[in-house]
Amino acid sequence: MPVDPILALRERLGSVMDLRSATAVLQWDQEVNMPPKGAEGRGQQLATLSALAHRLFTDPEVGTLLDSLHTQKDTLSPADAALVDVTRYDYDRATRLPESFVHEFARECSRAYEVWTRARAESDFSQFLPSLARLVELSRKKADLLGYEGSPYNALLEEYERGMTAEQLKPLFAEVAAAESQLVKRIAASPHQPDLSWLDGTWDEAPKWDFSLRVLKDMGYDLDAGRQDKSVHPFSTQFDLCDVRVTTRFNPKELFSGLMGSIHEGGHALYMQGHAPEDRRTPLLDGASLGMHESQSRMWENVVGRSLAFWRHYLPILRGYFPGRLDAVTPEQVYRAVNRVERSLIRVEADECTYNLHIILRFEIEVGLLEDTLKVQDVPEAWNAKMKEYLGLDVPDDAHGCLQDIHWSHGAFGYFPTYALGNLYATQMLETIQREIPDLWQQIERGHFGTLLGWLRERVHKHGRRKLAPEILEGIAGGGLDWRPYYRYLEAKYGPLYGL
Amino acid sequence: MPVDPILALRERLGSVMDLRSATAVLQWDQEVNMPPKGAEGRGQQLATLSALAHRLFTDPEVGTLLDSLHTQKDTLSPADAALVDVTRYDYDRATRLPESFVHEFARECSRAYEVWTRARAESDFSQFLPSLARLVELSRKKADLLGYEGSPYNALLEEYERGMTAEQLKPLFAEVAAAESQLVKRIAASPHQPDLSWLDGTWDEAPKWDFSLRVLKDMGYDLDAGRQDKSVHPFSTQFDLCDVRVTTRFNPKELFSGLMGSIHEGGHALYMQGHAPEDRRTPLLDGASLGMHESQSRMWENVVGRSLAFWRHYLPILRGYFPGRLDAVTPEQVYRAVNRVERSLIRVEADECTYNLHIILRFEIEVGLLEDTLKVQDVPEAWNAKMKEYLGLDVPDDAHGCLQDIHWSHGAFGYFPTYALGNLYATQMLETIQREIPDLWQQIERGHFGTLLGWLRERVHKHGRRKLAPEILEGIAGGGLDWRPYYRYLEAKYGPLYGL
Repeated sequence: MPVDPILALRERLGSVMDLRSATAVLQWDQEVNMPPKGAEGRGQQLATLSALAHRLFTDPEVGTLLDSLHTQKDTLSPADAALVDVTRYDYDRATRLPESFVHEFARECSRAYEVWTRARAESDFSQFLPSLARLVELSRKKADLLGYEGSPYNALLEEYERGMTAEQLKPLFAEVAAAESQLVKRIAASPHQPDLSWLDGTWDEAPKWDFSLRVLKDMGYDLDAGRQDKSVHPFSTQFDLCDVRVTTRFNPKELFSGLMGSIHEGGHALYMQGHAPEDRRTPLLDGASLGMHESQSRMWENVVGRSLAFWRHYLPILRGYFPGRLDAVTPEQVYRAVNRVERSLIRVEADECTYNLHIILRFEIEVGLLEDTLKVQDVPEAWNAKMKEYLGLDVPDDAHGCLQDIHWSHGAFGYFPTYALGNLYATQMLETIQREIPDLWQQIERGHFGTLLGWLRERVHKHGRRKLAPEILEGIAGGGLDWRPYYRYLEAKYGPLYGL
Repeated sequence: MPVDPILALRERLGSVMDLRSATAVLQWDQEVNMPPKGAEGRGQQLATLSALAHRLFTDPEVGTLLDSLHTQKDTLSPADAALVDVTRYDYDRATRLPESFVHEFARECSRAYEVWTRARAESDFSQFLPSLARLVELSRKKADLLGYEGSPYNALLEEYERGMTAEQLKPLFAEVAAAESQLVKRIAASPHQPDLSWLDGTWDEAPKWDFSLRVLKDMGYDLDAGRQDKSVHPFSTQFDLCDVRVTTRFNPKELFSGLMGSIHEGGHALYMQGHAPEDRRTPLLDGASLGMHESQSRMWENVVGRSLAFWRHYLPILRGYFPGRLDAVTPEQVYRAVNRVERSLIRVEADECTYNLHIILRFEIEVGLLEDTLKVQDVPEAWNAKMKEYLGLDVPDDAHGCLQDIHWSHGAFGYFPTYALGNLYATQMLETIQREIPDLWQQIERGHFGTLLGWLRERVHKHGRRKLAPEILEGIAGGGLDWRPYYRYLEAKYGPLYGL
């Protein structure tokens, strides 16, 4: 009895996805629950699961199935055709890297991570330099193996943002950097700086936790198909359409930072809970790209969660969680507080207004390394010069400079731009949303997020990986990537806030 | 280059154990964290992991490796020889069941579980009867496939208690039942019943939780290699030597039940944390048998945790967790409370003194079903008659009788006896321990458990599966299974408590 190749492919992909989901559960547990001594055993379990998933997915049998499905392409349903397309793409990329190369790369990364940890602790780039040099070299080799047109950087960027190129980003990011750094400098020079003394003191965790869950529920996050936990580094993850989890962390000295982190991860979680049920246990059950994913977290965290309308609704509710402490505070004061602009050396502490500058700096260094126009030993100098140029800040040491991020020690070149793209996508979307939901801000002021979520579900979430990010954007904005909506958004928000 | 077969075997087993550990993490998460809607996806992930682990382990290549290692048996180190022995045993059992049979059995179990849930809710055995009949039939088939001498029950019991037989247990359990039911009846008739009115009221969860963690730490449970959580059904599990977890649950109306549950699971956890590091990622990293595992949980819960010495140490500490409420209570009162004997219809509520009677009743019914001396439709009648004979209780309905336990709906015949064996093993050990640690009870009264734990580590824990339960027992008691130490223990404890 001949087996239907689409059924055979779906069964194979189901097993691969189950292994990847199990991997995600083990990783989540590692961050949220695992006792410290469990690390060694967990590392082995994760390595075994990943290797098995890779072997199952790159099995030549999958290639044969895909070939045979290609010949009957016209008879496939749209759902099956999309699955075959995406699987072909993933399969080709996965099989272009020989297992020996994957091992070599992984081994180098785990060595580099150890070295980076120590180098950062001692704020000494020279310790990390040889590892970084090897990872750049291996990444160029990886690009050669994967294949590319134009910049070798494209082959790596492709992993996170399919279809995006360095050639497209270079001029665009240069314009963003010029405009944004001007704005930031004007804000820094403004005499209208917010008075935040009402935020002094410590803020108990339990009410912040409860309030964050309240907001997540209001946003539409289904807690019967998800949960929130605490972890050192907040993240969101998906084991299945109906098991999507977020984590957060709370700093006793901050009232808002943990909450904004919850909303950010909640934005990712809403995307994951919004995929199509028929895509379960297939590679289609995922975001279009990391940039598109980040557009959802930033839409909720920054556009919605840092709006005046949002705080007009939530401040009276938050008062109930901190009896007596916020009675004299106004929504406008909260709005100023959560939108304070402060030039920082550290990306993860950066605000919405300065964030992209941190990213563009990294992007330009990464491209320089991959295109061999920047030598590895010159990274600190390049970093510090750009920090001065974009943010006007002097970098005191490598720990506060080019050693601050984990990404390069993981060999993850091409990841950073997706953060900035998230900001651009979100604000391009926002202009359409405001046209199509004219009373958006009145709804938010009433704590009503259903229309917005419905819009995002329909235009972004439900597509999963059936559409690429540029297609989704085209459908929403009627055009390609454009940084001007983002700049208009910043000016409209921060101009009045800082009396520019 | 020829591969060393022992290295090849260890590598293969490492992957299998990693998959099994991942399965255990997913199951733990399911009980402790998983949001309700995650059940469907989780079921598929678990099925995929189990199938892959089974396929990897029963691969003919493993058989070839084992054959080749058998020929060089004399050159193997003791560790390698033990590994080959245990793996051969597991491999032979695993490969005797054809995949089609395993699927059929699993399908029948999941159907039976649904049916049992409804039948229990409606207290109607007749609904469950056809499922139970099919599971008995399939279990007989399973026994035939696995092979056995004597009773077909032996093939099933073997799964949980290797080397134990129905022929050995039948006369032994009959003696236990006769002696224990006499004792229970004398206790029930005693005028010296404890006054437990001081336990009335509700008891907050947080102090009970903190106190339970304090006791677990004192026992020697390494919380850097473990953790405690809450779940509906308390359990313990191991993902690695250094990641051993327990769960508990607290009833607001009970001061002690959750704590005794924690100590019970802590006993299992100490066993798991005490295996040999060199057995990691091999099938040797496990208990000798379920009965031996249960001996450790019951040693800590009943022998230690329900002793007067234990409460002489812990009552003053517990007072600190419930300020003012326990000041007038004496260690003797706590001792009486945690050793109250009460004949109950429900096994999971049974105390130490009546517990084995519940088990023996089930054992006799299981053996009757497997040996075909008891018809499935006669189970309720047999159950109720034995309940009357052993405990003097009338069973009002099936929900409080033969439908109360989940085990049969899982097709787990042969599991129950291991609970009773745990009691027997523990008390046989106790007699040796008291000889070899003459000041055992003085140590416990000082909250010092290190000598006892060291003894258990040396004589039981470190062996993992390198020794079978009878070997371990022989090394400790200088003989085979004997029920008289258990009975002496009960008489010595409950005689004075109930003025017999």
